Formats: sequence, C-alpha cells, structure tokens
Amino acid sequence: MLVNNRHYETIWLKENNPEIVQAIDQRFLPFELVIEDIRTPEQMFSAIRDMHVRGAPLIGAAGALGMYLATIGRKTNAGYYADMASFLNSSRPTAVNLGFAVNRTLQAIIRGNTPEEKKKNALEEALKIIDAERENCRQIGLHGLTLIRKLSESKNNATVNILTHCNAGWLACIDYGTATAPIYFAHDLGIKLHVWVDETRPRNQGARLTAWELEQHGVPHTIIADNTGGHLMQAKMVDMVIVGSDRTAINGDVANKIGTYLKALAAFDNRIPFYVALPSSSIDWQLTNGLEQIPIEQRNADEIMKMEGLYNGSIISIDITSGKSPAANYAFDVTPSRLVTGLITERGICKARKEEILGLFPEKKPG
Amino acid sequence: MLVNNRHYETIWLKENNPEIVQAIDQRFLPFELVIEDIRTPEQMFSAIRDMHVRGAPLIGAAGALGMYLATIGRKTNAGYYADMASFLNSSRPTAVNLGFAVNRTLQAIIRGNTPEEKKKNALEEALKIIDAERENCRQIGLHGLTLIRKLSESKNNATVNILTHCNAGWLACIDYGTATAPIYFAHDLGIKLHVWVDETRPRNQGARLTAWELEQHGVPHTIIADNTGGHLMQAKMVDMVIVGSDRTAINGDVANKIGTYLKALAAFDNRIPFYVALPSSSIDWQLTNGLEQIPIEQRNADEIMKMEGLYNGSIISIDITSGKSPAANYAFDVTPSRLVTGLITERGICKARKEEILGLFPEKKPG
Repeated sequence: MLVNNRHYETIWLKENNPEIVQAIDQRFLPFELVIEDIRTPEQMFSAIRDMHVRGAPLIGAAGALGMYLATIGRKTNAGYYADMASFLNSSRPTAVNLGFAVNRTLQAIIRGNTPEEKKKNALEEALKIIDAERENCRQIGLHGLTLIRKLSESKNNATVNILTHCNAGWLACIDYGTATAPIYFAHDLGIKLHVWVDETRPRNQGARLTAWELEQHGVPHTIIADNTGGHLMQAKMVDMVIVGSDRTAINGDVANKIGTYLKALAAFDNRIPFYVALPSSSIDWQLTNGLEQIPIEQRNADEIMKMEGLYNGSIISIDITSGKSPAANYAFDVTPSRLVTGLITERGICKARKEEILGLFPEKKPG
Repeated sequence: MLVNNRHYETIWLKENNPEIVQAIDQRFLPFELVIEDIRTPEQMFSAIRDMHVRGAPLIGAAGALGMYLATIGRKTNAGYYADMASFLNSSRPTAVNLGFAVNRTLQAIIRGNTPEEKKKNALEEALKIIDAERENCRQIGLHGLTLIRKLSESKNNATVNILTHCNAGWLACIDYGTATAPIYFAHDLGIKLHVWVDETRPRNQGARLTAWELEQHGVPHTIIADNTGGHLMQAKMVDMVIVGSDRTAINGDVANKIGTYLKALAAFDNRIPFYVALPSSSIDWQLTNGLEQIPIEQRNADEIMKMEGLYNGSIISIDITSGKSPAANYAFDVTPSRLVTGLITERGICKARKEEILGLFPEKKPG
C-alpha cells in the first residue's frame, strides 16, 4: 500500500541487486521508516527473531527468502541447507507459516543439481510463496468489500464506521493485509469510511502499525484506548467490526490478539456484525474446539510494565509501573464462534461453522 | 491504609500545626511518595485542578478544607467567603461532591459571628464531611466483606480472585476506598484473595494507583492489560468483579471509567458476579435511565497519544503514536443494570433496580 505516496510491500528484492533482500524494519514504526538490507540467512534470522518483521504471512515470506540467501555465494557441504532450515525455523518456533515456507523452499533447493540451479529454485519458490500470500489477501479484500459496500448502501453512502483490533494489516502480510484489505479496497473505490483503531495494549500494534498504515494510505481513522469500543458500539458509532485471526478452529472459534473476545461480546450485545478476515492457512484443521484446545501463550511481563515511545527524537522505553507489582501478559484470547457473524477467507465468506467452512474448503473434508 | 507499614489517609491536618493541610500528591505515584503542604485556598485550588488529589470523596474533602484555609489569617470583606467558595468550586466544575462539600462549609462559616468562630465552624464542618466519607467506605467494606467471605467458603478457603477496573481505592477517598474496601477487610481478616488489576488506559489509574495501594498494604495482586479480563474469566481465573461508580442512575445503570461495560459483558457471559461499590452520594436521584441520560465526557486526546513513566529517575512523558493520527478519548461508559449483579452501598447490598435502591434509601422516594 502507499507510504509517502509510493507503493510499498513489506519485503522485496533490492532494485538492481537481487542478491539483497530489503524489508521495512517495523521496530521503528510509526516514528521512522527504516528500510533494512538483509544479505545473509543469519541477518534474516535476527530480523525474524527480533521482530523487525512480524505477522504470520510475512514471517513465512521472510523465512523463504532467508533460505534463498543461503544459496548465495556459500561453500556448502552435505546437510548445509537442512541445517539452515532448522536454524531459520528456530527464529520464531511457534510460527506455523515459517516452518511451512522454509521447508517448501528447502525442498526446492534440494531438487536443484548445481549451486546455480539451487539458487534459481529457491528464489522461484520464495516468490511463489510471496505471490500466493499477496493473492490471498487480495481475494479477502474483494470478498470483504461486498460487505462494506452493502453497509454503505444501507446508510445511503454515509460514512461506514469500522472497528479493528491489533494489526491485521499489510505490515503483517505482503500487501493489503487481512482485516484491512476490504477497508483499503472500499476506500480506494471512493466508499466513505472511517476506522476506529484499538491501540492494542500491551504492544500497541494498533496505535503504532495499523494507524500508520491507514494514515499513510489516506484512510480516515481515529486511535482509541482498548477500553473504548463498547461505548462506541452502544452509541451506534460502529457499523462493523473486522479483525484478523492467529489460529482458527474448524468449529469457527477464533484465537486472536488478547481483547478480541471483549469486542466480540460488545458487538453481539449491540447487534453489530463481527467479521474475522483470515487466509485459510490460519485454519488448524485438527482443532475441533478452539475454546478448549488452543493454549494461550504468556509473554514477558515487561511488555505490561514498560512502554516504548519517542522522547527528544529517540525511541526509548520507560517504566509505567512501580516494578514492585507483578504483571501478567496473556497474548491471545479465543472468541467463541457463537459471537462471530462470519469468516472472510480467500475463497469467500462463510458462517463460523464447521459445515460452512468445509463447504468452502471441501478438499479438507476428512475421508 | 498502610504505606511503608504506617497508616495513612489521603488528606489530613499537619501534626503540630493544624493550620496546614497535608495530602499525598498523587501525580508522583507509584514512583515516589510525595506529601504536599497546602497552606492557602489558592494552593488547594491548584491541588484539585491539577489532580494532586482526585476521586469524588477526596475532592469534596479537599474543597471543604480549602474553605477552612480561607478562614485563617485573612482580612475579609463582605462576600469574601462566597467568592472563595465559587473559586474552589471552579477547580473541577463537574465534580458534584466538590460543590456539596464547599457549600456546606460555607454555610458553617457564615453561621460564625467572629473570625475565630468562623474558623472553628469551618474546621468542624470539614472534619464532619471527612468522617462521613470515611465511615461510608467502612460500611461498604463491611457489607462487601460478606460477599467475599461467602465466595471463600464456597471455595473451601482457596484463593478468591477478584478483578477490578480503574482506582476505586482509598486514594480516591479518605481511607478504605469503595471497590477496594471489601478487599482490604477480607485480606486483613486472613481470607486468601488475589486481585487482578486492570491497568486502565489511558490514565493508568489501575497500574499506577490501585496496584500501589495493594502492594503497600500487602494484598496479593497482578497488573494486567485492559484487554485481558475476558480471557481470565473464560479460564475461570476470576471469581468476582468489583468496580466503583462515578454516577449511578436510579434504574441501576452505572457510569464508571471507560471499559467497565466490557468487563461487565464478560462477567455476564461467564456467569461471574459483577458488583458495583458506591457511596449513595454517587446516586443521581434525578436520573431515571443512565444509558440514555448520562453524557459521556471526552478528555484531551494527548492522554491517548502520550504516556507518562519513569526514565533515569525522572517522570517524563513520551509520544506513543506518530502524532499524525487523530485520537479520541472517551472517559466513561455506562454499564446497563441488567449486567450488574448488585450494588454495595453504605446501607447494604441491593439489586441494581429502582425498587431495591429506594428500599435502602426510603427517604429518597418521591412524594
């Protein structure tokens, strides 16, 4: 999407030097746009582990390109590429997309007979993965667009107010995003809309990333504290909620950033449609009950006790508690399917129910 | 309650010099305990306006003591005390308690015939107001204690987990607090309990004030992001919610810090009791429908866009957004009575319904 009026994606090959990968180093957003040159798989490992890049689809793309970098100008021995794959996979051990993309690229490398062929195969495979991720988001955007268009028509083209939580934007993907793709498509087509951006404590991905994306692309939006969405819904200032998903069970339960469940409750209580946008790669076909089966990761309590921001031109971290009180940092919650109006996938929109999900993805039917 | 193992209240007369008021300057909490000397009504005006002291009961007490300070060593003319009352009332124009306490003290001053009598009357009236506020909280604590005791018994004395939002603690009152009073009483009686403290963005009164109170008094507690309560309730890690109230309608609707409604929804969805602790002074006997009639104040967007904390030993404010995205800062929301299990008042516990509220306060029945 647009940054400084120029089209960007999150990761790409450097112009005039396709042996260097470039990516937006997201640690500096929204304060500064930093483009990082990544020349080695070791540098890619750090970029993934230290969250220069984040978001499931983007991490997968980064891992695949990390394998490609491993094929450039290295003396190799038996097992080298498999070692590199394990190494890259270990940068974010719980990211399912990472293992998938890295291993697919590893297989492509193994199929090559010469170093040149291995390099060519790795790049082709990585670009295929990136193309597929981009296309998934584009399809989600086109399907979700129909929902926003209908809302706009039902309001006689008055502004459609959409609330989103966390960052399910293009910064988490290659382009478009998941929850944001319908928003960008509608905005670009001239549909009047406005986005309420949950700041999304403790890591503030809403205030830092989603707000930056929308601001750069020119989409009207307002940052709010996570506490605010309920009141806005009671006051009829929200027409629709769209969020992303970190992991979706086939019964339609959705694990997403902590706090999503509270917004789903408020949407349900105020009869506001609550949609989840997700590429089918986020569906865990083994999970029959999200609420019962999805373990909730706890992250470092420092994320609650400290806050990062800009002070005199530098990004610093300050203490926002005394340090004497313990803090707990649950990263996700599970929104039960009964609160979800629908899932927006790359194949279309369906209810958050097993039969409807399998209707869109019949190849996943058991037996 | 206890601070550094010594009993404190929020505001008092200086030992050995009752012509000076002392108060905890809450702007420095939880980083530093600063005691402020307040010698003039002008200094009291600043202390209230600039939120050295905050919380409805405490503001009332501060206003009354501000009137007392106006009777000390001043040449007065006709209208002086009424002018001082208007002046003090203007420090927080929307605080109902402030006007009430200041005007009561003004009447006491007017009843005095000599400067000495006026001073004596002012101090007596201010101390009466303070005693009444302290006693209200104590009664709320004793009534609420019965609820915690029952929960503890039903769990065979296993730890009772209580979630609270914002600061309805002793720092907002004279002592004990409202939502915290039952917690302190239960803890002091040896009932095992643990408090989940919502950080309460954007002003972080939970992380800064409630956590500090509980830590100093030795009550087990954990700070969480506001997004977290729903997950904890789903996971059966919360036995009860207790919050305060800024304004209560006689139909039982409760206006409290933004985000309270979201926790009430989650408690209802998980069949967890949701109690509101309030002195009857917070009940607006004219309001028949809180949801429809209570206007929601918007505060400065800077509270969303900046964050205050400790850095190299100093309290500083950092930018946590780019500054290019607008932000909105709604201060309160209204929890509909259907989500409230009960109100804990100084006269006892009742359902959040007009008949039950008037049953405890029959003198408020119309006609």
